[in-house]
Amino acid sequence: MGEHTCSTELIAKAVREYEGVRRKSEIGAIVNDLKLDCPGVIASFGEDAAVIQNNGDALLLAADGIWSKLMDADPYWAGYCAVLVNIHDIAAMGGRPLAMVDVFSISSGSIRDAVIAGMRDASAQFGVPIVGGHLHPETPYSVIDIAILGVAPINGIIYSSTAQAGDLIVVAIDLEGRVHPSCALNWDSATLRTAEEVRAQIHVLEELGTRQLVTAGKDISNPGIIGTLGMLLEVSGMGGRVDLSAIPRPDDCHNIPFEQWVRMYPGMGFVLTLREKHREEVCGLFSAVGMTAQVIGKVNDSKDLRIVYNDEDTSVFDFSSDIGITNLGAEERCPRIS
Amino acid sequence: MGEHTCSTELIAKAVREYEGVRRKSEIGAIVNDLKLDCPGVIASFGEDAAVIQNNGDALLLAADGIWSKLMDADPYWAGYCAVLVNIHDIAAMGGRPLAMVDVFSISSGSIRDAVIAGMRDASAQFGVPIVGGHLHPETPYSVIDIAILGVAPINGIIYSSTAQAGDLIVVAIDLEGRVHPSCALNWDSATLRTAEEVRAQIHVLEELGTRQLVTAGKDISNPGIIGTLGMLLEVSGMGGRVDLSAIPRPDDCHNIPFEQWVRMYPGMGFVLTLREKHREEVCGLFSAVGMTAQVIGKVNDSKDLRIVYNDEDTSVFDFSSDIGITNLGAEERCPRIS
Repeated sequence: MGEHTCSTELIAKAVREYEGVRRKSEIGAIVNDLKLDCPGVIASFGEDAAVIQNNGDALLLAADGIWSKLMDADPYWAGYCAVLVNIHDIAAMGGRPLAMVDVFSISSGSIRDAVIAGMRDASAQFGVPIVGGHLHPETPYSVIDIAILGVAPINGIIYSSTAQAGDLIVVAIDLEGRVHPSCALNWDSATLRTAEEVRAQIHVLEELGTRQLVTAGKDISNPGIIGTLGMLLEVSGMGGRVDLSAIPRPDDCHNIPFEQWVRMYPGMGFVLTLREKHREEVCGLFSAVGMTAQVIGKVNDSKDLRIVYNDEDTSVFDFSSDIGITNLGAEERCPRIS
Repeated sequence: MGEHTCSTELIAKAVREYEGVRRKSEIGAIVNDLKLDCPGVIASFGEDAAVIQNNGDALLLAADGIWSKLMDADPYWAGYCAVLVNIHDIAAMGGRPLAMVDVFSISSGSIRDAVIAGMRDASAQFGVPIVGGHLHPETPYSVIDIAILGVAPINGIIYSSTAQAGDLIVVAIDLEGRVHPSCALNWDSATLRTAEEVRAQIHVLEELGTRQLVTAGKDISNPGIIGTLGMLLEVSGMGGRVDLSAIPRPDDCHNIPFEQWVRMYPGMGFVLTLREKHREEVCGLFSAVGMTAQVIGKVNDSKDLRIVYNDEDTSVFDFSSDIGITNLGAEERCPRIS
């Protein structure tokens, strides 16, 4: 923990108090109303992307949006993130992103130009084209919503609901970055990387899926490292134990308090579970693309996610009594600005 | 024209003055900024759905949204339409709709419940599941954006840019319907049909594509019958001549002025171009599913869309001098309420 003091109680509280938790039941009701059983749909709500079988392929479909607060604070970054979070959704499933469509509500010309510039730069950097869209003109607010299409071999998909007791929990993050100047809770690494570098990072997940090196995975999004792990463990019906001191984090020179770091939305970060025998290979693949992957704990069947540090040991989420945190991800994946 | 008087000048003016025309250059600039050349992308902006090659298949991806005005006027109908217009996008390309994702901005619980009910009913009726999404909670406005994934054989796609001089222009509409009580410019047929009926109607387009019975096609959306035809002819680099008296329309008992009818957004309607030899077969396929398909004119290479009625003959759009109306469709596909 370096020079920062750390209390597992403090960290657990910070993770739990993420505002989205309160709205989880609302999302659950919407999902229940909308869900329709269809033979080709292998996975839908609850995964980072839906999985639809089409001949031998799995087609992946996801949507994410960024709304006013971030658009007003830094429209270029909002546009960039709108693309980035969608690419994360496909990568997290072990897929290859193919194309995006956007729906744009626009309140001013200057916001529009900056958002479009951010979207274009991210689209070009990752090599994923925006192929169509829709514009709501002259709205009294600004929202950019993007949907993304990806593809994966049907046997190479990484789900979040398939972690098993005894698996190692690995966090992989690109630590070469910065706290984004506009957003204290965004760890920006992607804009500092070349196109070749970010594409190689995304491709690692495709390789993990195709070679079946992990049992489950999820991109680290709004709820941060521990919140995202919580979602993965909950849908898997598992629990886990995490050693806070093992969580990869940037050099102390960035001076980020630990309770801030664990809640940050990284530009490139994933939580994975895997068998001990694949540990070295998986960590090596991430290391080869400039990312830091470390084992931070282990999956167990307790339905309780606990964090430990020195002599402290605190429960963050007890899934046997909590209704569910999983919908967090579906709700607010856009980077929080504070 | 029945009991209604009709002037080609009046009709041409009503079509041209569609408010979206004024904003076309703004959309063009956004498209130019976002467009990225990618080898797998066969078609993108300008078509009803983008076409992405994936092995032997063509994947179709489109997005459309409905915003505040209609949401406030009739949230159930807004939710229903949000699904319907997306299904039209895939059908218009000759594709089979597979799944949708939604992004929902929500301003009140009662609007939310009604919108969700409309989306669910349309999704269930057409058999196209909503498989994921994102919620912007507690926004000061209401928007529902949907993206849709479809699939088609690579040689069975119906484009809008491929009409040829000499082709017949056919309009196919389900005339069994009503002016929607909430929206004077919506001709609602779909909610009055069974699931089996609407699915059969959508399937006709897939058959037209697979059997290559049409040269081009587009779903009739916000700009109405003539505006939609204008978009198709413009991207095809063609012109056309339309006999207003040949346009299919409901019985006079609905008492809809003709200048209103030609601007209406039908629940199920398509503009198609085809060779004379396929006329009977195409019209027969529509007739078998309760739709009325009639030849309303002919494509020519004049780059001028003219409407004729009795002795009158008026140009609606001169594509050789106008900058372009094609982006109309990308801009405001949601049904206007007045």
